[in-house]
Amino acid sequence: MGQGAFLSFEGIDGSGKSTQARGLAAALRRDGHSVTLTREPGGSPGAEEIRRLVLEGEADRWSPQTELLLFTAARRDHLEKTIRPAIQRGEVVISDRFADSTRMYQGLTRGNLAAEVDALHELMIGVEPDLTFLIDIPPEAGLARATARAGAEMRFEGMGLEVQTLARNGFLALAAQEPARFRVIDGHRPEAEVSAEVYDIAQRWLAARG
Amino acid sequence: MGQGAFLSFEGIDGSGKSTQARGLAAALRRDGHSVTLTREPGGSPGAEEIRRLVLEGEADRWSPQTELLLFTAARRDHLEKTIRPAIQRGEVVISDRFADSTRMYQGLTRGNLAAEVDALHELMIGVEPDLTFLIDIPPEAGLARATARAGAEMRFEGMGLEVQTLARNGFLALAAQEPARFRVIDGHRPEAEVSAEVYDIAQRWLAARG
Repeated sequence: MGQGAFLSFEGIDGSGKSTQARGLAAALRRDGHSVTLTREPGGSPGAEEIRRLVLEGEADRWSPQTELLLFTAARRDHLEKTIRPAIQRGEVVISDRFADSTRMYQGLTRGNLAAEVDALHELMIGVEPDLTFLIDIPPEAGLARATARAGAEMRFEGMGLEVQTLARNGFLALAAQEPARFRVIDGHRPEAEVSAEVYDIAQRWLAARG
Repeated sequence: MGQGAFLSFEGIDGSGKSTQARGLAAALRRDGHSVTLTREPGGSPGAEEIRRLVLEGEADRWSPQTELLLFTAARRDHLEKTIRPAIQRGEVVISDRFADSTRMYQGLTRGNLAAEVDALHELMIGVEPDLTFLIDIPPEAGLARATARAGAEMRFEGMGLEVQTLARNGFLALAAQEPARFRVIDGHRPEAEVSAEVYDIAQRWLAARG
């Protein structure tokens, strides 16, 4: 049994982070790692129910504060029911989004609730990934990809160039503040190139941990 | 248009607080007050959905921490969508339970999360009722009444004499800490006697406010 690890992928909408998370999970499994691939909001049966509650219905049915509390409840459940048990089994957990997304979307762009986001995280979550891949692309490129997709995601995605720009700059600032945890990956390249870099970094990081 | 007011009723399960809340609402309406009668968990369409999410399914599907976050989300929605607008219209809001119930059940008896309950309240709610009626009865009497009822409420009610005793003592301690807000009412008497005292206090309190 390996030593458990917790990796996350972050980035603005349309950055390709979900594709990269899936690709890394597949590559690490080929190498013999046990991998739990998960996502937020959601990632456990209870958290998926909370996700539906937030994403269904009118876009402004919840205030930014209520939405933040619901996402934090979902994250707590995800952490307890999916992430921690997998880490304890020695697996590599790969989460498509984690708390950094809340720092951007509820903390910075939607609600301007940075102080509340940080205080709630410290109080009720208290955990960061060991390693976070920030898949960075220009906001224009992300927006073009995101709006080419459809579905419930569009509720939080496709919120316009201004929001995408704020979020991108916010993610980069966060990465600069926590260089030991973040790896900033240029996502504005062919998918295979991005995947190769992500895999290389993850593999070395896991090897270095022993 | 009168000056808005926010009253709450608290007490252990089976104390008769819901009956008293309804009775006071009716009496104040007869006196010409505009009254919004509400309850927790719930009290707004969104908060009622969160209530169902918490109360449905297995009793231990949510950890005490996740449950606390969900109840706080519901309270925030209740406050924004029901309580504050009614107060701003100059109404008397009467809520069957508010944050004190969370202080007891999540803070004291279920999760031992008193520090988290207080921090979350300060961070995301920040409001107390103007006046709180604590309908006090011996735990044995409350338990007998509560277990005579049925339905979803039993999930949180009828949790045994030990829990009822802890909650009763906790409510009394809270009332002693905040004598300006609390009125402790002996609920172990005929309903009409209790109603008369509650009405008398509320009427005087509203008159004194002008």
